[in-house]
Amino acid sequence: MELLIKNVTAVTMDPQNPVVENCFIGIDQGKICWLSEKEPEEKAGRVVDGQGCAAMPGLVNDHTHLPMTLLRGYADDYALQEWLQDHIFPAEGRLDARCVQAGMMLGLAESIRFGTTSVTEMYFKMPTMAEVCFQAGVKANLCNGAMCFDPASYDFHKAGETLEMEEMLKSWHMVDEGRIRLDVGIHGEYTSCPAVWEQNAAYAQKHGLNIHLHLSETKKEQEECIARWGKTPARILADHGVFESRVTAAHGVWITEEDMDLLAEKKATVAHNPVSNLKLASGVAPAARMAEKGVNVALGTDGVASNNSHDLFEEIKLSALLQKGIQGDPRLVPAQQALSWATRGGAFAQGREKECGMLQKGMDADLILVDLSGVATQPVHSPVSALCYSATGREVILTMVRGRILYEKGEFKTIDVERAMAEMKNYALPRMTGRQV
Amino acid sequence: MELLIKNVTAVTMDPQNPVVENCFIGIDQGKICWLSEKEPEEKAGRVVDGQGCAAMPGLVNDHTHLPMTLLRGYADDYALQEWLQDHIFPAEGRLDARCVQAGMMLGLAESIRFGTTSVTEMYFKMPTMAEVCFQAGVKANLCNGAMCFDPASYDFHKAGETLEMEEMLKSWHMVDEGRIRLDVGIHGEYTSCPAVWEQNAAYAQKHGLNIHLHLSETKKEQEECIARWGKTPARILADHGVFESRVTAAHGVWITEEDMDLLAEKKATVAHNPVSNLKLASGVAPAARMAEKGVNVALGTDGVASNNSHDLFEEIKLSALLQKGIQGDPRLVPAQQALSWATRGGAFAQGREKECGMLQKGMDADLILVDLSGVATQPVHSPVSALCYSATGREVILTMVRGRILYEKGEFKTIDVERAMAEMKNYALPRMTGRQV
Repeated sequence: MELLIKNVTAVTMDPQNPVVENCFIGIDQGKICWLSEKEPEEKAGRVVDGQGCAAMPGLVNDHTHLPMTLLRGYADDYALQEWLQDHIFPAEGRLDARCVQAGMMLGLAESIRFGTTSVTEMYFKMPTMAEVCFQAGVKANLCNGAMCFDPASYDFHKAGETLEMEEMLKSWHMVDEGRIRLDVGIHGEYTSCPAVWEQNAAYAQKHGLNIHLHLSETKKEQEECIARWGKTPARILADHGVFESRVTAAHGVWITEEDMDLLAEKKATVAHNPVSNLKLASGVAPAARMAEKGVNVALGTDGVASNNSHDLFEEIKLSALLQKGIQGDPRLVPAQQALSWATRGGAFAQGREKECGMLQKGMDADLILVDLSGVATQPVHSPVSALCYSATGREVILTMVRGRILYEKGEFKTIDVERAMAEMKNYALPRMTGRQV
Repeated sequence: MELLIKNVTAVTMDPQNPVVENCFIGIDQGKICWLSEKEPEEKAGRVVDGQGCAAMPGLVNDHTHLPMTLLRGYADDYALQEWLQDHIFPAEGRLDARCVQAGMMLGLAESIRFGTTSVTEMYFKMPTMAEVCFQAGVKANLCNGAMCFDPASYDFHKAGETLEMEEMLKSWHMVDEGRIRLDVGIHGEYTSCPAVWEQNAAYAQKHGLNIHLHLSETKKEQEECIARWGKTPARILADHGVFESRVTAAHGVWITEEDMDLLAEKKATVAHNPVSNLKLASGVAPAARMAEKGVNVALGTDGVASNNSHDLFEEIKLSALLQKGIQGDPRLVPAQQALSWATRGGAFAQGREKECGMLQKGMDADLILVDLSGVATQPVHSPVSALCYSATGREVILTMVRGRILYEKGEFKTIDVERAMAEMKNYALPRMTGRQV
């Protein structure tokens, strides 16, 4: 085998085998080939001592806009409309592919450093994003997010998003045995129209693609949809065929009990983004209730303009805390469940549940090592508690996708962070802020 | 001057001079002697290059129980009564002074590492706590937290807490020019009785001490107090003289508008503990409203059994996020305000507003350097935003109290962390879990 991790506490997310102390994890040809308290007889090309560390599946960021890393802290503490119209949209309007590349490289560097191995991403300039993800070594489900503000003139076949999808389908979809995947993106009910929903849904069905969309993020969105259609966003989209494919619905803050039943029946996922939902004052999604009703829950950071971090461990802790605090029940979303949302929940949402989300023999070696030996995490009465409530992405010391190490102890193996920083400072930020170079 | 920090972005918390880019901060005899964009002419004994860093006042943790670090992750996700009665209290009952010392050393190491320079602490074995704080170099306001479950037999002069206070008053209060201070501790309304309130209040008045107590943490506490006395906890304690001294009231989740008026009038502080309040399902304190009404707000982590971290940057971010998300207004608690709660708010609560809480010439050099150059914090459109929303305690690279460096780039200068870890593992944990060594 190529690599052996020894002396590690494996928090596997596998219900059959949840925590294995003093574990040996063997990796060969990109897959986990050994996971046991027993030492394998076979020699390993490299041995990593995991003493004091937990190994767990790599985290899945199931809803983000990584190029927005350029906008971190650009405009905080504003009301939503002012934030979007006066600050975010004008800045985004000035981003070209080279800016997107720089933002994407930095966002991915941060993600990898904090233990994320797979992202569900919605932004523009998809071929650029795919190229960056490919080089960085992460798994990625990419979409643009079709919009339409003039239904009368909408033509699916000529729409920019469709043309980009066509290009992606030929050049990037399923590249590297599915490491890069194309999703169909529908920005949201309130930013599009029935023709967008129907034809994108049909496109997804025809090509076997997942769909990624925003759903019921704000009260305003929910109420205006009901006023417009007499139905909730989930219901109206379902009525136009959108939920016939596997869907990641981001946010779901305002979804109803009936919406949850619908999403559960359709095996859809809600990507829960607690930090962003609080910061933009959207509210708190009823994530515990969704899960109870059978909706798959995953976690997302959203863009850093509304977070302002890609450390998914923050979402893990906050998703556990918020449901307890808001519902008044400290037993809701125990640590194990929050960790499962960030791993298995995300893997299912991406259509990758057979390849990752658990540490299990035969699965892809998408895993991270989290150092639990420091003052911020000791003592460790329970490794599951330590990972959920005490550790942050800063405790991650190794991030691996399909056995390839992307980050180890301060070193980025696939991203030239210095170059990305220089690109950001010398090209992207001057352009974005209107002081073009 | 002894030390000069150059090329730093000073986020001073001083309203007259909030952010100074490319700042020089000079330190001599424990105080800030220079703060300007201009370089001082005087030579410095040591020059620290603050390039890429922000300097800000050290954080004040205004409500914690540091020795409970031993209980991190010991019992999560339980209902409050079960958590306390079946898990926390039995374990605490087995802690002796040596355990308290080990837990306190670890808790302080974590605090210092994450940028806390002063703590408002309530626990037992105060002389041990004082000794550890003294050695560690932090500022500390210490109290025990008087209780009484049998009012008929309560005798203030013979109570264990009083005897400990008497001892502290003689041996530790105001040691090192007030670096260590004794507070009077009243555990809470629901765990004590009028004699405790009155006599502790008189003791505080007589000796010019602050008071530290728990207030309106849970709905049950609030409702039972009103049923018992016909008054809220704040009102009944005020009626017994408790608010005639400077008070830190921890939590305040359920306080009323009238309580807020009372606390504002009495110049009291509410120590807001958002993580703990969510985790134990107590709720969300109306911190923005309190501040609006003139109550001084400070931040606390509470004990790590209900947090499970001493990284006060988590409380800073969460206190900004929660008020927005729960009240539905993204303009509430902007970054500057949350940072101010963690610095000036805490300094006032401790009675230290003339010595720290701001970076200002003449004040104690209680400051931290936060590295904003990494992938988690770049770009920095606003240093205030970066400190509130993107940085964590992990970005702190230097922690200083009165010019003395307690932590720098991975090195603890005053705490032997290895020895504390060994004490925890070999002595404290076996004793606490009942497997006495």
